[in-house]
Amino acid sequence: MRVLARDIAAHVNTEITMSGWVHRIRELGAISFVLLRDRSGIVQLVYDGKTDLTLESVVHVKGHVRENEKAPGGFELQVSHTDLLAKAEPDLPVPVNQEPDNLGLDAILDNRLVSLRIPRIRMIFTLQSAILRYFAEYLRGQDFTEIKSSKLIGTGTEGGTGLFTVEYFENRVYLAQSPQFYKQAMVASGMERVFEIGAAYRAEKHDTPRHLNEYVSLDVETAFIETEQDLMDLEIGILKAIFAGVKRDHQDILEAWKADVPSADDVDRIPRISHDEAKEIVSSRLGHRVFEINPEGEREVCEWARENHGIDAAFVNGFPRKKRPFYTFPDGQKTMSFDLLFRGLEITTGGRRINEYPMLLETLPKFGLTPEGLSDYLQIFRYGCPPHGGFAIGLERLTQKILGLSNVKEASLFPRDRKRVRP
Amino acid sequence: MRVLARDIAAHVNTEITMSGWVHRIRELGAISFVLLRDRSGIVQLVYDGKTDLTLESVVHVKGHVRENEKAPGGFELQVSHTDLLAKAEPDLPVPVNQEPDNLGLDAILDNRLVSLRIPRIRMIFTLQSAILRYFAEYLRGQDFTEIKSSKLIGTGTEGGTGLFTVEYFENRVYLAQSPQFYKQAMVASGMERVFEIGAAYRAEKHDTPRHLNEYVSLDVETAFIETEQDLMDLEIGILKAIFAGVKRDHQDILEAWKADVPSADDVDRIPRISHDEAKEIVSSRLGHRVFEINPEGEREVCEWARENHGIDAAFVNGFPRKKRPFYTFPDGQKTMSFDLLFRGLEITTGGRRINEYPMLLETLPKFGLTPEGLSDYLQIFRYGCPPHGGFAIGLERLTQKILGLSNVKEASLFPRDRKRVRP
Repeated sequence: MRVLARDIAAHVNTEITMSGWVHRIRELGAISFVLLRDRSGIVQLVYDGKTDLTLESVVHVKGHVRENEKAPGGFELQVSHTDLLAKAEPDLPVPVNQEPDNLGLDAILDNRLVSLRIPRIRMIFTLQSAILRYFAEYLRGQDFTEIKSSKLIGTGTEGGTGLFTVEYFENRVYLAQSPQFYKQAMVASGMERVFEIGAAYRAEKHDTPRHLNEYVSLDVETAFIETEQDLMDLEIGILKAIFAGVKRDHQDILEAWKADVPSADDVDRIPRISHDEAKEIVSSRLGHRVFEINPEGEREVCEWARENHGIDAAFVNGFPRKKRPFYTFPDGQKTMSFDLLFRGLEITTGGRRINEYPMLLETLPKFGLTPEGLSDYLQIFRYGCPPHGGFAIGLERLTQKILGLSNVKEASLFPRDRKRVRP
Repeated sequence: MRVLARDIAAHVNTEITMSGWVHRIRELGAISFVLLRDRSGIVQLVYDGKTDLTLESVVHVKGHVRENEKAPGGFELQVSHTDLLAKAEPDLPVPVNQEPDNLGLDAILDNRLVSLRIPRIRMIFTLQSAILRYFAEYLRGQDFTEIKSSKLIGTGTEGGTGLFTVEYFENRVYLAQSPQFYKQAMVASGMERVFEIGAAYRAEKHDTPRHLNEYVSLDVETAFIETEQDLMDLEIGILKAIFAGVKRDHQDILEAWKADVPSADDVDRIPRISHDEAKEIVSSRLGHRVFEINPEGEREVCEWARENHGIDAAFVNGFPRKKRPFYTFPDGQKTMSFDLLFRGLEITTGGRRINEYPMLLETLPKFGLTPEGLSDYLQIFRYGCPPHGGFAIGLERLTQKILGLSNVKEASLFPRDRKRVRP
């Protein structure tokens, strides 16, 4: 029966077997120390004499567990037998047993299949798995249903720009930018409350630390809301659940990344300011008038929130109509829409949607759209659609900001950008 | 405070508000009965005189709850005030308040945004949401990590056929047929145990009741196994968790579809037969020699299992090498691979993978492949990859077979086939 590194203390003074990767080798002549890495942690193996192991080889070892206060974790395995399950070639393209601080982004991503072995890098994705869990658990607890919609669409709900084209038999279709259309359809179907975890695609030629051409979108849509305030309340619930889960279950990852998550009290203090107020704040801080909130402005708003509300985040709502998609519910000259800025970065966009069929028909021409071009979409509203709204959280951006990663690509297992389609 | 249909009994003899869709209208002159549908169920509204409501309109109503043994559920709401939140046009393309038995597949799918309102059809996707939950919960309980890999790949791991092409800036890339490459990479990274819930694409021109061009794949991959028997054991654990959850939480859906799920004892009785034995069984039952297990053969094997083992399912293992992908671990002239047939349909394919670098290099030319064409893939093995394997369960096929749907497209929210790319 294989024992994991994290469980070795329970087996002191007994014979056990362990399996894992050769993480480090230190040969001292009469004795060798080998660190063995498995999914749960790292343990010290002790060999008499030299070993002929190479770094990253996979082994199955048998030995005797003993206490040694100098060993990592306080226990070690005196090895009596080793099976080499898979020998690693000695030409590792990046070192696995060193902290990755000196590796550049290209070195990490070009050698992704090896850099993911670096424990601190692998932790990014252990955390991401946990975020997926907390997000889904919280929403299921609120009576939400998980949906899986098609990523192959005939036309874009956001208009035709920024779409990747797919050759689909005799047709040309597009990769969906968001499940917007489908999550609204499912709300109107009577499910009322839905969420989707799925890929989203943006064919934009940006190359910035905040953009990916393929990302994981945590999408939420819910019926019978009144304004975007209801949606911000819902997002607060989700964020509290995610942050509390991370703090409870993954303190080791936060420590490895010298990171922390906001407390529930912090999250409750996130200010809600209008787009106009946000522009004022940024203008005043930068000393010149701004007309939109660009990335620099997002950082300034968060810095202002930290100074004035003790939390490095802000909801911005009341965007003008022309800055939001056609389906956004109007509120005078403004809209019932919002963004969430967190640690200097927009991680959520959302809002109430137009649910009234006549209002939607009236709106289309103002955005240069026709009912014919959106006939599928309009069917949702023709037959009774409740007031509703929703938002999406970018999984990689949230991960990035929790851990303090400098580039969002570090938070994507296999990121895609204009030049990168492998591995 | 809105009360849901399922909670009305707790509010008897009080004034409450409810919201939902107008499901049915029966006007009797002096009095009208309206069924109101919300996400939790259906409740009877009573109006004095006539109403001017249309079917599927969305309303918010206020009224007094009273007991009435003739009302569905035993309670009804005497309405004192109605807000029409969204009026539905009267030309519904398919009826929402009738059982869908007489609707053909095309009527259901061509009018998907309306047919999803039919309660029994919506239930398919409530069940699917629950399956996603049980699958993830079970694997997390077994120390698995959830991953999200890219669906845009430079080359196919299964060879180049059956891939959809995407115009990706200056490049042409493909939609992934499976996360095979990536889940193996994550096992080798040291995560050891991973699962992924994601879209998979097959550019095959089939039009059968068992194929989709885009489906949701429940992928599992795990390290330190010995043979495919370990994988079948794992899948048994997953299936028991899914079936037990469905039985516990969704008896209403099983009843509506006149369906049932196997018990844990049933699942333990699933026979494990070799591909050769399966061919013998099919040949003997059909009275002529068969050389592979086609869809008719899959039904025969399940029927044989039902008669002989009391469960309408069978694991088939030991497929010959030429019937499995190059990366399948050999076992003499056979391979350490398996399929799971459930209620007459293959719902899983899996196996141990080749993890030894020299064995993989030796295998490539036998399948007409070159190391250069698979250089990314080979990096996984060059640097120490443990023995491992995995499998994938088709979410729509599993849903279809649990509920007894005649076509897998019924189990996809927005199915994609050669001719269908909308809505």
